[in-house]
Amino acid sequence: MELQLILLSADEAALRLEKVRKEMSCHGIDAIVISDNANKYYLTGRVFAGYIYIPAEGQVTYLVRRPVEMKGQGIAYIRKPEQIREHIGPDVPATVGLETDIMSYNMVNRIMTQFPESRLADATAVMRGARAVKTASELESIRLSGVKQDHVYSLIPSLYTEGMTDIELQVEIERASRLEGCLGQFRISGDSMELYMGNLLVGENADTPTPYDFAMGGEGMNPSLPVGCNGTLIKPGDTIMADINGDYTGYMTDMTRTFYIGEIRELAKKAHKVSIDICHRLAKEGTPGTKASSLYDTAMEMAKDAGLENYFMGHRQKAGFIGHGVGIEINELPVIAPRSRDILQPGNVIALEPKFVIPHTGAVGIENTYVVTADGMQPLTHSPEELISLI
Amino acid sequence: MELQLILLSADEAALRLEKVRKEMSCHGIDAIVISDNANKYYLTGRVFAGYIYIPAEGQVTYLVRRPVEMKGQGIAYIRKPEQIREHIGPDVPATVGLETDIMSYNMVNRIMTQFPESRLADATAVMRGARAVKTASELESIRLSGVKQDHVYSLIPSLYTEGMTDIELQVEIERASRLEGCLGQFRISGDSMELYMGNLLVGENADTPTPYDFAMGGEGMNPSLPVGCNGTLIKPGDTIMADINGDYTGYMTDMTRTFYIGEIRELAKKAHKVSIDICHRLAKEGTPGTKASSLYDTAMEMAKDAGLENYFMGHRQKAGFIGHGVGIEINELPVIAPRSRDILQPGNVIALEPKFVIPHTGAVGIENTYVVTADGMQPLTHSPEELISLI
Repeated sequence: MELQLILLSADEAALRLEKVRKEMSCHGIDAIVISDNANKYYLTGRVFAGYIYIPAEGQVTYLVRRPVEMKGQGIAYIRKPEQIREHIGPDVPATVGLETDIMSYNMVNRIMTQFPESRLADATAVMRGARAVKTASELESIRLSGVKQDHVYSLIPSLYTEGMTDIELQVEIERASRLEGCLGQFRISGDSMELYMGNLLVGENADTPTPYDFAMGGEGMNPSLPVGCNGTLIKPGDTIMADINGDYTGYMTDMTRTFYIGEIRELAKKAHKVSIDICHRLAKEGTPGTKASSLYDTAMEMAKDAGLENYFMGHRQKAGFIGHGVGIEINELPVIAPRSRDILQPGNVIALEPKFVIPHTGAVGIENTYVVTADGMQPLTHSPEELISLI
Repeated sequence: MELQLILLSADEAALRLEKVRKEMSCHGIDAIVISDNANKYYLTGRVFAGYIYIPAEGQVTYLVRRPVEMKGQGIAYIRKPEQIREHIGPDVPATVGLETDIMSYNMVNRIMTQFPESRLADATAVMRGARAVKTASELESIRLSGVKQDHVYSLIPSLYTEGMTDIELQVEIERASRLEGCLGQFRISGDSMELYMGNLLVGENADTPTPYDFAMGGEGMNPSLPVGCNGTLIKPGDTIMADINGDYTGYMTDMTRTFYIGEIRELAKKAHKVSIDICHRLAKEGTPGTKASSLYDTAMEMAKDAGLENYFMGHRQKAGFIGHGVGIEINELPVIAPRSRDILQPGNVIALEPKFVIPHTGAVGIENTYVVTADGMQPLTHSPEELISLI
């Protein structure tokens, strides 16, 4: 039994390749060697061990180490990167792009032994740029993840029983997610974040700073993974913020909802409403051509106007963004941050997460995933946005 | 509330630092800048965003980006790597070691702007070497993970119900593991492997090649994560191989057991017994000073003598090793492979996994985690090794 290398339709593979080549042209890069799993998945619809060599024109070469037995046009089996050159034809690119922002220093140098006449360029931005605008097929995958994630979130109150700790509830949400088809993997570019299956933040633990570049923190169950649940008993007066993995298709949605039990502080209720208001306002304003930084500014202004600046995007420690692109990975372009130079384009998929941490109560607010259209940002996650009682 | 940076005891932190400095000396490196989360966890007992600067002698500097509010000797808060130099004193190291095998090309170059007079060296091997021999405290953490993992494995038959698919059973094992305290995270160095929480291989799916450098494969639920369960119905005549995350303490054990239902082929039973025999023989022979390659050769010889070479370490696709170091990460030193130059040392922790793939039946064999002692390799995982009926 042989395995087909390219799992995308011929049209879809051609469309994605064209987008990548357009970015290569903009960056003045003559050929790229792609190694990152997320980028290989984008170009072929599967993860394999090896490289993809893409010249500005002509045949793409798939340099495969594993798995065995793959078939398709342009495949060459290699054992190590030092064999790349013998398989890619005689043309010498003046500039070779590698993913230097994520590929190890040693690997970049090993690959460049194959291109002694070429100048090294950074292809990380090429791939990030191409992937920032989703194709119709990618949008369908994201939409489907959203439907499944919505369903799992609707189950959360039924998974809670009195006397549970945060981690006990999270484990039940994990199980429900997995049974719904969640792949579990939470693909992140780079090493600034680590997470297992999502973040459930209960009460004061939401205010514990994390080392990671997430919007919210939490102490974690162990200092080897200091984020999320810390074994807190869920008690009346707490908010319970659920931000659980939405990767059901290889493409993910990112959604947060906030639950509570008992009576919670008015300040928390107010902040939650402001979070919803910010999402609605930004979704309306987020038309193609809008500056990502202006969306951030609007959100910050609304938080200030509500007198909630001190709690916005964290309290003891603050996150520097209120939204981010999402797709194969959780940290794609554009970035909704004060110094972002990104401009919204039709087909961007963006998670907005204007959240608050209210001391002694917990985190409040929502997160939705949206697609940018001529009419603004259309939500791909549809769960009820108000605070939801767990009991 | 401030956070203590160093969570290790003073003695333990000093011991680990001494091991690292001894390796630095062997490699002729005058100072290292550590960035990798696993390495920072090794040196401090916690993960943080930032760097650790370790000169051959004198004060260690902890260059922290996040979390806020940490306290302890030698801490400096920085926003970016270009601020390292201003905090580490005036001495200029002739050679600076960075983790060039795992750190991105761009980050290496950014950090080296801080050391324009210094020569760059690879510190990856320094840290791998230091971490390969566990301290008594590390061994305790691994031992504890083994106890918990043993308990979860004892529950597996009770989690099975007739008509389950592989993924349905895996989800129940995941839940049982998490409730026992499994952290979920499966820390892997480099980008050659991706996995969510473990690998359950049922029947023929065990013979599907994976792109990853695992001993076994499996198709996976989606080509974005092509390993493990693929939705196979568990049926009589199948073997069910469970290789599930054993990270309960930040340090993990790695254990595999094989289950079955109904009548399975004699060939599978025979191969399973050979796997157990290989483990017992290697555990006896694995004294300090033993070549890792000779353990591999012995295993391969035993598989050949049993006439099972064609099924050993995979069938359609074969793995190139039969064991590996384990600790904070799943792929530590030593590597038990034919061309390994590693020599066993007291305190190495090694997972041995001599496994077989029997066509139309599935994977068989066991995996245990051992510590190398003067008397050979002592197991840290103790679950019954024979084939276990799920019903």
